[in-house]
Amino acid sequence: MSTPPIAPGATIGIIGGGQLGRMIAVAAAQYGLKCHIYCPDPDSPAFEVAGRRTVAPYDDAAALMAFAESVDVVTYEFENIPSQTAEILAARRPLHPSASALATTQDRLTEKSFVAGLGIPVAPFRAVDDAAGLADAVREIGLPAVLKTRRFGYDGKGQVMLRDAVADPAAVMASLRDQPCILEGFVPFEAEVSVVAARNAQGRFSAFSPCANEHRHHILARTIVPAPGMAPETAADATAIARRIADALDYVGVLAVEMFLVRGADGRASVVVNEIAPRVHNSGHWTIEGAETSQFAQHVRAICGWPLGSPALTGRSVEMLNLIGDQADDWTRILAEPGSHLHLYGKGEARSGRKMGHVTRVTTGP
Amino acid sequence: MSTPPIAPGATIGIIGGGQLGRMIAVAAAQYGLKCHIYCPDPDSPAFEVAGRRTVAPYDDAAALMAFAESVDVVTYEFENIPSQTAEILAARRPLHPSASALATTQDRLTEKSFVAGLGIPVAPFRAVDDAAGLADAVREIGLPAVLKTRRFGYDGKGQVMLRDAVADPAAVMASLRDQPCILEGFVPFEAEVSVVAARNAQGRFSAFSPCANEHRHHILARTIVPAPGMAPETAADATAIARRIADALDYVGVLAVEMFLVRGADGRASVVVNEIAPRVHNSGHWTIEGAETSQFAQHVRAICGWPLGSPALTGRSVEMLNLIGDQADDWTRILAEPGSHLHLYGKGEARSGRKMGHVTRVTTGP
Repeated sequence: MSTPPIAPGATIGIIGGGQLGRMIAVAAAQYGLKCHIYCPDPDSPAFEVAGRRTVAPYDDAAALMAFAESVDVVTYEFENIPSQTAEILAARRPLHPSASALATTQDRLTEKSFVAGLGIPVAPFRAVDDAAGLADAVREIGLPAVLKTRRFGYDGKGQVMLRDAVADPAAVMASLRDQPCILEGFVPFEAEVSVVAARNAQGRFSAFSPCANEHRHHILARTIVPAPGMAPETAADATAIARRIADALDYVGVLAVEMFLVRGADGRASVVVNEIAPRVHNSGHWTIEGAETSQFAQHVRAICGWPLGSPALTGRSVEMLNLIGDQADDWTRILAEPGSHLHLYGKGEARSGRKMGHVTRVTTGP
Repeated sequence: MSTPPIAPGATIGIIGGGQLGRMIAVAAAQYGLKCHIYCPDPDSPAFEVAGRRTVAPYDDAAALMAFAESVDVVTYEFENIPSQTAEILAARRPLHPSASALATTQDRLTEKSFVAGLGIPVAPFRAVDDAAGLADAVREIGLPAVLKTRRFGYDGKGQVMLRDAVADPAAVMASLRDQPCILEGFVPFEAEVSVVAARNAQGRFSAFSPCANEHRHHILARTIVPAPGMAPETAADATAIARRIADALDYVGVLAVEMFLVRGADGRASVVVNEIAPRVHNSGHWTIEGAETSQFAQHVRAICGWPLGSPALTGRSVEMLNLIGDQADDWTRILAEPGSHLHLYGKGEARSGRKMGHVTRVTTGP
């Protein structure tokens, strides 16, 4: 379905009501766009900043149809959307990113095969459907390796690190509820980096500066821009890879490509693609204050068929810290800290491991 | 009523649903605060970015009481609130700025008398209640002078410029619907400037850099920061005046003090206070991208009892252009302009003279 340009006053439909949908809605409001949020959780953070909401399951066809009819363009804030849901929406309104981009990126095996097929370096991988398959895959790839469910994983959920010989493959598969999996060879990386970028319907591409990401307990803890120790030519390579991926997916919207920064025996740095997030991304939150255009505004521009904004840094460097669980209790101290920009997502309960907010610090001057 | 500090998760009640309320609500959301907007117009722009709304007249006591009970603190985006409305709210929840600050600033005569009483320069003024009073006042103050209604004027509405001898004072009064008025001597100014500043419940004060404002047809057209031709010592004087006014009002929240920049016979520059807006102000919109803390975030901090944020400029200078009426039709060009930040308020109809949005341009570098 081709996309007529959307004008201010139109309504963006957003599937998913978490902090990403919330920040997309705020960015849309700046441009005079309305938002309609669709989420099964009646306490969704995004509901607080949008004029319209639908509380219904993601597989409620009637609710999805009514939702689609009420908006001008549809997007989403998370990739675990059933394919039937995407089809119902795409049949009625422009859906960005497309159902096919979603299908490719919501399954780790499809995604890895797609990226490898573009000739872009990825970790060695094998499909694993059962215990016997796991034993075979370990023999072929070697250890250490990471076994991941093909679908629905996030923040380290749905994966197991395999370091030593796998004594009981059936038990390992059972720990992932015997879901279809992928075994990925472990990549000894120097740093985890990501490229957050946008592509619009006209094929224009714009990437933010690659950033370095530090995880704790598999959850993003800190993002630094520019990525320390990443040479300009490596950053350019990483950006070119993101562009090839976006072009090959005929992608419309913001995407994030997570990569490992590795160093070869010859001392040369290069990147290996880990995964693609077909949406705005936690490692792009720094752009709200740290870039001329935020990733959320850029996503809105892309899905509306508008020109992309400048991704230039507003300062010399930026640091973004996630506030996980009770770290958000520190809000009074952060508020008083000169140069710290506090963001809280309006979530009720600060459960352990829950992303409650983030803090951005922009360094200006020489 | 004293103000307990408000915590994220609490709800701010905002009286008025225009663009100012809309931008306050967006700023509150960043801090994890909810908003409840009260406005009689069912199409209010602020409704689109808030989780809760009340559509009711400003004098509906039952609706006001229910509204107050549903929120933790109340603020407003315009000063023409009936005093009874303010009293109903203030009896139930902390109201910032206070009912007394509102009473002082919503009547031009009370406001001018208050400022003059602080020993701060204002234009000569006289109360005018009828045609005879107008004739007397013109004799005392001289011409040119400006006759303004004491209440409910904005953007040049409710005022008449008197240049020549007033032949028919009764006709002039009738043109302002015989409302109680104030005659103000015309101040030959070099520039119109404003100081947007905040004061919190602890008495801390923080001012943004004074800005120069250009009006067209009595509506703000352009704001420039720092104000060109305003020497640092004059800017410091202007800021000190804003602080004395805020302290004397025991003010909590953001206020704007509009001033004339005048030059004496000796060539010395000074400022004359024109009026006080007890709220966030159009001449402070540049702070969204142009200052470390926006006026909207600063207002939220002040009314919540939080520490004030840094008012420092993010660049070397900033220009803010209002988009009035069909100027907003230019949005596609502005979107494509590097360095331009487009803001549209989501108003349905681009009526002549209606503020539809604004554009901010921050100049960085040396």
